[in-house]
Amino acid sequence: MNARPIREVGENHIVSQFRSLALGTLSPDVLVGSGDDTAVLETREGHLLLLACDMMVEGIHFRREWATPRQIGWKAMAQNLSDIAAMGGLPSSAVVSLAASGDLSEKDAMGVVEGLTDAASQYGASVVGGDLVGSPGPLIIDVAVTGWVTREHLLCRRGASPGDVILVTGELGRAAAGLAIRQNSLEDDDAVTLEGALKAHHEPIPRLAEGQAIAATDRATAMMDLSDGIADDLPRLCAQSGVGARVRRDALPVAEACRVVASRLGIDALQFAVSGGEDYELMFTCPPVAVQEVTKAVKESTGTALTVIGEIISEQNVLLVDAGGREIPLGSGYDHFSGSDG
Amino acid sequence: MNARPIREVGENHIVSQFRSLALGTLSPDVLVGSGDDTAVLETREGHLLLLACDMMVEGIHFRREWATPRQIGWKAMAQNLSDIAAMGGLPSSAVVSLAASGDLSEKDAMGVVEGLTDAASQYGASVVGGDLVGSPGPLIIDVAVTGWVTREHLLCRRGASPGDVILVTGELGRAAAGLAIRQNSLEDDDAVTLEGALKAHHEPIPRLAEGQAIAATDRATAMMDLSDGIADDLPRLCAQSGVGARVRRDALPVAEACRVVASRLGIDALQFAVSGGEDYELMFTCPPVAVQEVTKAVKESTGTALTVIGEIISEQNVLLVDAGGREIPLGSGYDHFSGSDG
Repeated sequence: MNARPIREVGENHIVSQFRSLALGTLSPDVLVGSGDDTAVLETREGHLLLLACDMMVEGIHFRREWATPRQIGWKAMAQNLSDIAAMGGLPSSAVVSLAASGDLSEKDAMGVVEGLTDAASQYGASVVGGDLVGSPGPLIIDVAVTGWVTREHLLCRRGASPGDVILVTGELGRAAAGLAIRQNSLEDDDAVTLEGALKAHHEPIPRLAEGQAIAATDRATAMMDLSDGIADDLPRLCAQSGVGARVRRDALPVAEACRVVASRLGIDALQFAVSGGEDYELMFTCPPVAVQEVTKAVKESTGTALTVIGEIISEQNVLLVDAGGREIPLGSGYDHFSGSDG
Repeated sequence: MNARPIREVGENHIVSQFRSLALGTLSPDVLVGSGDDTAVLETREGHLLLLACDMMVEGIHFRREWATPRQIGWKAMAQNLSDIAAMGGLPSSAVVSLAASGDLSEKDAMGVVEGLTDAASQYGASVVGGDLVGSPGPLIIDVAVTGWVTREHLLCRRGASPGDVILVTGELGRAAAGLAIRQNSLEDDDAVTLEGALKAHHEPIPRLAEGQAIAATDRATAMMDLSDGIADDLPRLCAQSGVGARVRRDALPVAEACRVVASRLGIDALQFAVSGGEDYELMFTCPPVAVQEVTKAVKESTGTALTVIGEIISEQNVLLVDAGGREIPLGSGYDHFSGSDG
């Protein structure tokens, strides 16, 4: 592996390196991995198949000067795994398409592949194939991921009912704070806090164990992952469920790093927490009576805390309510900054 | 739908159009299509899961001035379905990621989506999700496709044995002739022949029925689709099987359109037929004693002719042999022109 550009090294060489790395992550249910027309996988009896894809474009979703190649690959895989987590599922396999400009070095290309395969194998998924093509423009990474879920554990965006409460895993706004650190070239005088935010932005953790634990309680009614922030994502869950929601501003679990960075930039931390995006925490609904049981189950099996942030209402508005009772509509009307790097 | 660019129309509008088109193609085994974190699909009991992806980049794999948006979408889906055909499988579902530059018109974007969904539904697959992102550069389309195959009908690239014969479906070189028509701006004084070649280049037909018919005979030993041409693809099948091959030059079923275009350009038609690529015919191996049975079965169920083009040998060379007994090595040593548009 070296710093020569792909153009000189040759595509076949990269592909064979790619395959040998990916082979290291193959789980026993992969009958045929990379190298044939398709991958071939055993199915899980009694399970449904989950399938999703997410594309990352250089200059829009990431910048090579801000993230290491490994982080870029990790994030591309992690955001796909997060979609499997959001259905209560187990990840199984992934295929990866890379459009790489000819000046990308072999070392950087392999760094991206390492990030992809590390994230996959960390969560029990196998990279089973892919496509490497030239790009006259930006580096583009597209991942398609499969997973398994039983019919009884499947959690969709539809299913939330008026009276249900809304919960989230972990804390909010850390990834947006990490992005803001990069965008504003903040210095490192609060190293530990800032590092945590940068890590959240560049190396998100898919909440797979949490999603499975929530699904296993059989008490949740709807679930999704927070990829764009509550302001955009909660209206989507509500639209699919045909309901509305009230979120209590004071209840939001805003991350400490988010408060620190927002304060240094003179911004309301709520901006990051509500519309920053890319936290990849899970948001779900359940009847109020089930909150204690679900919270205990998730805490015991994963160590992750849950927070009740609001409730589902029948009127199809999605509102953020402050301590004084003032209501701000979320969704397209909410004045949020873009979560993208561009 | 109109000619305004995506930048003005808004991504959400395109996504909702996309979903409504894709919804039209949903098969009964799709429990949840586009609009959730993942699609959810019923599995087929006793079947293995097939998974593949293929990316198409503007300027490298297609040009918007040569192909209609619908043709671009069709081809992106068809080449993925061809991978399912190459395993003997039934296509099931697909997810599509589009990186679209902001100046792409809504009409053209929807044309691409129509081509994608038309090709999918034509062959019984459902488009169950996707991702639409901005591209600062070229239009990029990545498709990931799933399919089903029973263990006994699965056909991989490995499995060919010395003594097996090599067969192909249909004819070769038509798609390469279509590309050459575009590259050389050939005029249309042989309209029917040229149109057939252009259609083969822009709207390839995945050989799904043929692949299933070949698999159903239980006589084939290895199979793949011809996406890059025999010169590149046969060495891949041989490498996976640990064998070599001898192809008889005179036996190759060179398409009439390929001969006509090659003659007008003063090129050996064999160039197109052997290394042109994108024919998406199937190439497979079987014992000589099974040729008649397989040929009859495929002809009766699909109308498609098979041609024996050579045989598998134990020595790991892949050779093209002419009537005089002269041998030319195929593979990386074969002097072939690029099959790409770029």
